[in-house]
Amino acid sequence: MSAATKSRGFVGVVTPQDMTFDVPLELRSGAVMPAYTLRYETYGTLNETRTNAVLVCHALNASHHVAGMYADDPKNIGWWDNLIGPGKPVDTDRFFVIGVNNLGGCHGSTGPASRNPATGRPWGADFPLVTVEDWVEAQRRLADRLGIERFAAVVGGSLGAMQALQWSISFPDRVRNALVIAAAPRLSAQNIAFNEVARQAIMTDPDYHGGDYYAHDVVPRRGLRLARMLGHITYLSDDSMAEKFGRDLREGKLNFGFDVEFEIESYLRYQGDKFSTYFDANTYLRITKALDYFDPAMAHGGDLAAALAPATAGFLVISFTSDWRFPPSRSREIVKALLDNSHDVSYAEIDAPHGHDAFLMDDPRYHGVIAAYMGNIAT
Amino acid sequence: MSAATKSRGFVGVVTPQDMTFDVPLELRSGAVMPAYTLRYETYGTLNETRTNAVLVCHALNASHHVAGMYADDPKNIGWWDNLIGPGKPVDTDRFFVIGVNNLGGCHGSTGPASRNPATGRPWGADFPLVTVEDWVEAQRRLADRLGIERFAAVVGGSLGAMQALQWSISFPDRVRNALVIAAAPRLSAQNIAFNEVARQAIMTDPDYHGGDYYAHDVVPRRGLRLARMLGHITYLSDDSMAEKFGRDLREGKLNFGFDVEFEIESYLRYQGDKFSTYFDANTYLRITKALDYFDPAMAHGGDLAAALAPATAGFLVISFTSDWRFPPSRSREIVKALLDNSHDVSYAEIDAPHGHDAFLMDDPRYHGVIAAYMGNIAT
Repeated sequence: MSAATKSRGFVGVVTPQDMTFDVPLELRSGAVMPAYTLRYETYGTLNETRTNAVLVCHALNASHHVAGMYADDPKNIGWWDNLIGPGKPVDTDRFFVIGVNNLGGCHGSTGPASRNPATGRPWGADFPLVTVEDWVEAQRRLADRLGIERFAAVVGGSLGAMQALQWSISFPDRVRNALVIAAAPRLSAQNIAFNEVARQAIMTDPDYHGGDYYAHDVVPRRGLRLARMLGHITYLSDDSMAEKFGRDLREGKLNFGFDVEFEIESYLRYQGDKFSTYFDANTYLRITKALDYFDPAMAHGGDLAAALAPATAGFLVISFTSDWRFPPSRSREIVKALLDNSHDVSYAEIDAPHGHDAFLMDDPRYHGVIAAYMGNIAT
Repeated sequence: MSAATKSRGFVGVVTPQDMTFDVPLELRSGAVMPAYTLRYETYGTLNETRTNAVLVCHALNASHHVAGMYADDPKNIGWWDNLIGPGKPVDTDRFFVIGVNNLGGCHGSTGPASRNPATGRPWGADFPLVTVEDWVEAQRRLADRLGIERFAAVVGGSLGAMQALQWSISFPDRVRNALVIAAAPRLSAQNIAFNEVARQAIMTDPDYHGGDYYAHDVVPRRGLRLARMLGHITYLSDDSMAEKFGRDLREGKLNFGFDVEFEIESYLRYQGDKFSTYFDANTYLRITKALDYFDPAMAHGGDLAAALAPATAGFLVISFTSDWRFPPSRSREIVKALLDNSHDVSYAEIDAPHGHDAFLMDDPRYHGVIAAYMGNIAT
């Protein structure tokens, strides 16, 4: 982030908050979560009519920390800070923005590493599988407690976009607009395949201990590291990897050994190592499952239009040309299903080189579309 | 294989042979292989003028067993049997076809699991890294011993195609035609990235023991399994996975657990399990490195045309539209560099749905091109 950006549109120091829910939550699996906590942050001010709230849903490895920084950790900038702030495309001078760590997460909300009240030990393997529908239901309860009857918009990229889509189906009266960015209406076999390799990497790590590694004072770091390395490949485009790393050699020559030789190897190992120090493996497993399971058309015999029929929101769907994880064709499936319902939908296909990760980038055409769309939302 | 295919063009029972070389082989890395053995098979008959020999080079997980079956293992059919046999595109009534397991392999040729004469124990971690250039040099020595001055054709798909290309550069006088199928002139950053994840899966497996797992009576099965699962994703196209598995559920419903749910998960686990029982991890590591290192243009400042300038062979280059590992654009780089040299090249881009693995499939348009090209080669 440049100093200019900071002075122009930075939300500044933010403080996460916790909200505890005592009413048990029945999950799609049939399991029941007893009391649980959601950690969240807010930026901007809720107006008197409570009509300016925007919910930002996070993807696989993000959290409630969407914008701003922490007083005691100024380098920890929110993951979508380039989009959200005063004068930014999601303008906190106009909107009251909420970020929330999903149930099952590892950034403050109740998750597999939390204490299971039934045993007094970490949930571990006993933490139930959670779905996009469950997250949306949990977020709805948070909205209730915050006194928000209807969101001006629910916004998300990737898995976050699936939550925005699910909001429009589960609670049509409670969301005026859904911003569905870099999404797919359900994973392809190839998408599931990548998730499965990541899961198997974690679950076959001897330090996984069937998910109860907390009791052994270890974490399945090898597996998490591999999962993250693999994930990174799918987040970037072939072209952006070529541009950023190409076949560059770290020492300018081949060493005929198995230490890092190509810069891309160094990058992946670094990303994997870093991730494995802070992300909970049980959360990773569950989030990939939530991705695999998301398929609103399933209950309608595969008919996505039928699944989206209840929606009343206005939609902005955005895809990126170089995204091979959820390519534009997947977003067009969503647009087609919305049009089949005569729903109000705008669609932008952004010519961006960054692959799936483009949704996190500060691209003027991309941000311009969001700024224009958000600017048209009355508060 | 259908009975019809068998009766029409099956080479029948074949017997692998071993050839031992006592003259040390200096490798590209500077390491020297002392005496070593190559295992190979032949189909058809070498003519009196020794002008009808065809060398088939193998890719990552194949071997010298290219066609036919073994008397004591009739289900073990050669990996390219659909292409090679009497009356088939590579017609063993006309050609004398040789398949050879590369140095460093695990199917009979000297490799990391072989006895290191210096220690009396398996080579393990001490087995040197081998390159495409090294394999071609070893194959050249085999040709010498078989009395083959000049191959009618050197044929390969994927990594095998890289060897065919290298033959045309290293020994222009000894190859009349090079069939370069589903190739790339060098790996992209993304290609290397996938290889690196596979290597890290193997090398971080606690059973890897720094490559000397033979001494511990274990193999890094978890790592090999992950490497193979990941490999499979890159060999298939998104569309062929969708066609073959889609989102089909094994039990017709979600189980909200981590056992197999989707058919694609079952397929990948099965492939990974099977592979990990027979393939040597040290061989896998070295073959991925040979892939990463292959870059004939590197010695010419990145100029592929300059690298291919010495070639005198005729070329047939074939790519497959759905191959996202080595897409047609990579083959076109080779074609362009050959044309820049005014070399004789035919190029076919086959509209096939199977992804990279298409080069192994019995596709009439694909096989028709090879049959036509091989039919024009005088013996």
